[in-house]
Amino acid sequence: MSPSRVEVEIPPLKDLNIENITENVQLINSNTPDPRLKYVLERLVSHLHDFARETRLSTNEWMAGINFLTAVGQMCSDVRQEFILLSDTLGLSLLVDSIDHPKPPASTEGTVLGPFHTHDAEHEPAGTLISSDPDGVPCLVLCTVKDTAGRPISGVKIDIWETDSHGFYDVQRPDRNGPDGRTVMQSDREGVFWFKAVVPVPYAIPHDGPVGKMLKLLNRHPYRPSHMHFMFDKPGYDHLITALYLRDDPYESSDAVFGVKESLVVELTDVTPEQIKQYDCREDSKLITYDFVLVSDKEAKNLREANAMKAMKSLGRRMKLYKGLPVPEVD
Amino acid sequence: MSPSRVEVEIPPLKDLNIENITENVQLINSNTPDPRLKYVLERLVSHLHDFARETRLSTNEWMAGINFLTAVGQMCSDVRQEFILLSDTLGLSLLVDSIDHPKPPASTEGTVLGPFHTHDAEHEPAGTLISSDPDGVPCLVLCTVKDTAGRPISGVKIDIWETDSHGFYDVQRPDRNGPDGRTVMQSDREGVFWFKAVVPVPYAIPHDGPVGKMLKLLNRHPYRPSHMHFMFDKPGYDHLITALYLRDDPYESSDAVFGVKESLVVELTDVTPEQIKQYDCREDSKLITYDFVLVSDKEAKNLREANAMKAMKSLGRRMKLYKGLPVPEVD
Repeated sequence: MSPSRVEVEIPPLKDLNIENITENVQLINSNTPDPRLKYVLERLVSHLHDFARETRLSTNEWMAGINFLTAVGQMCSDVRQEFILLSDTLGLSLLVDSIDHPKPPASTEGTVLGPFHTHDAEHEPAGTLISSDPDGVPCLVLCTVKDTAGRPISGVKIDIWETDSHGFYDVQRPDRNGPDGRTVMQSDREGVFWFKAVVPVPYAIPHDGPVGKMLKLLNRHPYRPSHMHFMFDKPGYDHLITALYLRDDPYESSDAVFGVKESLVVELTDVTPEQIKQYDCREDSKLITYDFVLVSDKEAKNLREANAMKAMKSLGRRMKLYKGLPVPEVD
Repeated sequence: MSPSRVEVEIPPLKDLNIENITENVQLINSNTPDPRLKYVLERLVSHLHDFARETRLSTNEWMAGINFLTAVGQMCSDVRQEFILLSDTLGLSLLVDSIDHPKPPASTEGTVLGPFHTHDAEHEPAGTLISSDPDGVPCLVLCTVKDTAGRPISGVKIDIWETDSHGFYDVQRPDRNGPDGRTVMQSDREGVFWFKAVVPVPYAIPHDGPVGKMLKLLNRHPYRPSHMHFMFDKPGYDHLITALYLRDDPYESSDAVFGVKESLVVELTDVTPEQIKQYDCREDSKLITYDFVLVSDKEAKNLREANAMKAMKSLGRRMKLYKGLPVPEVD
């Protein structure tokens, strides 16, 4: 018997029925040597089976589910991730982000990544105009990034991406020949980063696929309120995926993917004559300003682990942490 | 307000967090006019979110899940259904069949359909040799089909399919040019149907895809014990999907898809000299005999609905039946 293996007695897997199948599937799955995989699978099978039992799921409904998930998978391509869209529209993405990236009160909240981030945007200097859209309303964006003690953080890598004025990301354009409406910047010694963009507009998430059909059956609209995405990365700080939303957007309180948080809603104002001169921007530019606050890796880890153990305790489970994630305490 | 619509107050969907996201997703989903879809989605979202909360699912694990499901969808083709394979290996398929096709004590139990049934098999007369495999051990199969009162049922359409002696279904052969190892027959006036086949052998479910990777991570083998599939169809009788398993197969008690039931395990015997003459079969033929018992639609419906209401009661839910399936009783 290998010490890295958890050996279990597997009873004969025969004559399984509504009542005994779950414990038997759990037993055969519990041969994995990875305690975290074992726990995640145990919870997955338990919920999957309870779902079928509590709904008395019919064979026709099961087949509809199989066909739906197959269609979701087959809709995925290099530029479209329909399973992320499904996760977003069921609220799972926001939930997982909230669990994995807890925020102490003074820090910037996270929100959904969405399916439109790419890895091909150019690193560009402060002040760059990130959108080539001739129809967009120009928008000056002035930001800082600090730590929870209020100290500027320099050298943070910031990914920024937004729609054009027609509500499309560059990857949704069949004639895309490079990044547009997206950039990568670094904060300077004062924690400042700034750029010129266009005012984002509301848009429908891709709804010509299976997720769109699901939303229609549920009488839900596919719209997201106007927003601009930001992703912050610097060793020592918890990875922050967030977005800024525009105040008074028609979809501010009914986002199809549940991303809006009051602390991330900003007023769109006009640039002042001084700003037009200082930042060399158009007179009709709108202005967004925001001060982002990053959490250190250590703060995030402590908070995540404390929250996890508190949640496990409230479930009445005797757990311990394994690589920072809960697994059952085994006698 | 349309009378077919359930109108609900949707609170502003903003500032959603680990604690409040589930109820808000439920509220926006509850706009669907279909009470069954509403209930199924409500249970789905509840279990999906509880799964994430109880595991404290990390972003990396979530992404691994997204990638896994995408790969499962993309592995599906006209001749391969990887999502059914996933459902089979997690015990969901057997569970759903047990819920949807309850069997009174005297009737033949059902089991998993599996991914290898096709719709192109020929209707053939009694006695047909269904396999062209020259390496197979010949096998005479003599069956009857009756109702729960013991009366023969004539005119039942019976789909039969099996592996060849190498453990492959015809659809797994790249050079397939038509059905082989499968047929469709009708029971005669005495409820009899019989045919010549080859002795089925154990085989591995397709494990070169994502489901195979999952089994490997779980230290599970991908084998199914030797079996022959049967599907029974006649108006007025509950659709029966079942299989016969061979006694003493090395995988009899560790079927990768949890399908074996003691009542479906048969002894493989030798044909008698009389049978060789009567059925004009080879002297080295093996013999399988089985008497199938179908449940009427009405018996199945009554039992399914009674089981559903009993299960709902034990969950403490106030439910009613809607098109034969449970939905919440609304005041």
